[in-house]
Amino acid sequence: MKLATYKDGSRDGQLVVVSRDLATAHYATGIADRLQQVLDDWGFLSPQLQDLYEALNGGKARHAFPFDPASCMAPLPRAYQWADGSAYLNHVELVRAARNSQAPNNFYTDPLMYQGGSDDFLGPCDDVIVPSEAFGIDFEAEIAVITGDVPMASSPEQALEGIRLVMIANDVSLRNLIPDELAKGFGFFQSKPATAFSPVAVTADELGPAWRGGRLHLTLQSAWNGRKVGMCDAGPDMTFHFGQLIAHICKTRNVRAGSIVGSGTVSNKGVEGEGGKMTWPRGYSCIAEKRAIETILDGKPSTEFMKFGDTIRIEMKGPEGQSIFGAIDQKIAPLAKKPR
Amino acid sequence: MKLATYKDGSRDGQLVVVSRDLATAHYATGIADRLQQVLDDWGFLSPQLQDLYEALNGGKARHAFPFDPASCMAPLPRAYQWADGSAYLNHVELVRAARNSQAPNNFYTDPLMYQGGSDDFLGPCDDVIVPSEAFGIDFEAEIAVITGDVPMASSPEQALEGIRLVMIANDVSLRNLIPDELAKGFGFFQSKPATAFSPVAVTADELGPAWRGGRLHLTLQSAWNGRKVGMCDAGPDMTFHFGQLIAHICKTRNVRAGSIVGSGTVSNKGVEGEGGKMTWPRGYSCIAEKRAIETILDGKPSTEFMKFGDTIRIEMKGPEGQSIFGAIDQKIAPLAKKPR
Repeated sequence: MKLATYKDGSRDGQLVVVSRDLATAHYATGIADRLQQVLDDWGFLSPQLQDLYEALNGGKARHAFPFDPASCMAPLPRAYQWADGSAYLNHVELVRAARNSQAPNNFYTDPLMYQGGSDDFLGPCDDVIVPSEAFGIDFEAEIAVITGDVPMASSPEQALEGIRLVMIANDVSLRNLIPDELAKGFGFFQSKPATAFSPVAVTADELGPAWRGGRLHLTLQSAWNGRKVGMCDAGPDMTFHFGQLIAHICKTRNVRAGSIVGSGTVSNKGVEGEGGKMTWPRGYSCIAEKRAIETILDGKPSTEFMKFGDTIRIEMKGPEGQSIFGAIDQKIAPLAKKPR
Repeated sequence: MKLATYKDGSRDGQLVVVSRDLATAHYATGIADRLQQVLDDWGFLSPQLQDLYEALNGGKARHAFPFDPASCMAPLPRAYQWADGSAYLNHVELVRAARNSQAPNNFYTDPLMYQGGSDDFLGPCDDVIVPSEAFGIDFEAEIAVITGDVPMASSPEQALEGIRLVMIANDVSLRNLIPDELAKGFGFFQSKPATAFSPVAVTADELGPAWRGGRLHLTLQSAWNGRKVGMCDAGPDMTFHFGQLIAHICKTRNVRAGSIVGSGTVSNKGVEGEGGKMTWPRGYSCIAEKRAIETILDGKPSTEFMKFGDTIRIEMKGPEGQSIFGAIDQKIAPLAKKPR
């Protein structure tokens, strides 16, 4: 089934069930008001939502209305955990190659992961508000999952069973703040502002055979200012699958219902073109990667980061061209004024 | 006023108001069930809780019962944010001096902060479950605040106004996992398991003149296996006050109601004793600091990290010796068995 959260002026919004084709929606009132409530009591509430979903798809839901992605908050507007991996090692390799360094060997056995802020997510069509263009504004197109409870010391296989919903994400990054921040040794903080999520979150059964081995084998499209810049296959080059990422968190703690776990920037390996020259025909899911490729090829980056007014659209389509999660479609905007 | 959350088998527990002397409590039923609810609507709900608090202190609350810290979850059993600073630079200086390095200059102007997991906090008397003693189990006695909404780009002074409640915390650390984790460059993750908080969270007015300049000028006591090892003054050596820590988060994002912000390990500067030898008469708020001091004095650490069965008690008392937050009182315990 497909679930979304409609804006209603409250902090957690209103849970809606959305039809498979994203054409219609129906309030989940009477079953649950908020998505976190469903995650807290999945076994009891999700079958009721599934019934409503089937009625909606069959055109038999009584109070269906046209679905509007612009009315959506993030499926979970705030969450108790947002842990983002960097599971596509190709991305790490490119960024490192651009500065003549190699990924250490343990990067291939031990996932990279950072803890993100989860108190204030953005809806799929909300502006990305940044105080300054000088921060180096970048998008990052990712896959993310929402979990149920996964106990401490669970195996990757056990962790996979804990996945409840799948989404796509724009993990906005402020690239020019990263070097100083990482140099301090405590990881990302100010360089990772609010993350945006797709209009709907979907159960894995909606993805059919494209969801296998803890990976989503479909193409993640990114269009920057209307120009398609990324058509990256999220499946084959994901070094660590979602079960491995969740098990990484579980090594020393319990993962509780409503935790969101991200894949990191989706990235595909380059291919050797004519004369041995490398090309990256699938494009890029973040500008930092494009700049790394430019540095490798030309000695320096030529693509600049995003400016105020720029737009970014991220979407994933199924084998028949249907949008699965709806599109993240955002504009970069300045902070209106100092508060108070 | 003083607020706590009683265990009732649910994920968020039941909100109770606790008397100033921590002797009695009263369910907040009829006003609010959960603390997050109060933080989401502070202006409307907190005066009603304050009225109940005054009735309770005056012995006039109808259904008061004896307050039992062991029945408490963390005041916020799960939160949308847990951002922990390292605001006592003396702690950083000691740890660095032990490995012959100095804190970089920008550490004195730009707070160190990491994002912690917030989906599964421990109650004040809950066991600290760790899969292996070999992880290097350490306590960290800290001060923490819970905020209301603080908008992006707020100043430290504006951020101070956003503080709703104050607590103490045990930010458990797994020291032997830290070096490898920090070497990867993304900061702490597995080395920071679930954090525990004091039985009650209190409003700043309860702290009187001890709460000034965004700092809490009282002594944080730590007793390890019943032996007092720390009597650290949380006020004077806090390099960055809580307003500065919150403003650090706000630089690139909004901080939303129910965010918890920590001070990092409370630490006091050493004093020069006879013959110019340094001493640290106030002891320590984490074992890593004791080991750093031993390394500085003797060339190597002699105090080992915690073992299964060890206990840690953290408490803060007011000028008249009264416990303000109740005590964190935990035992270190192994993971019972592999899940499932």
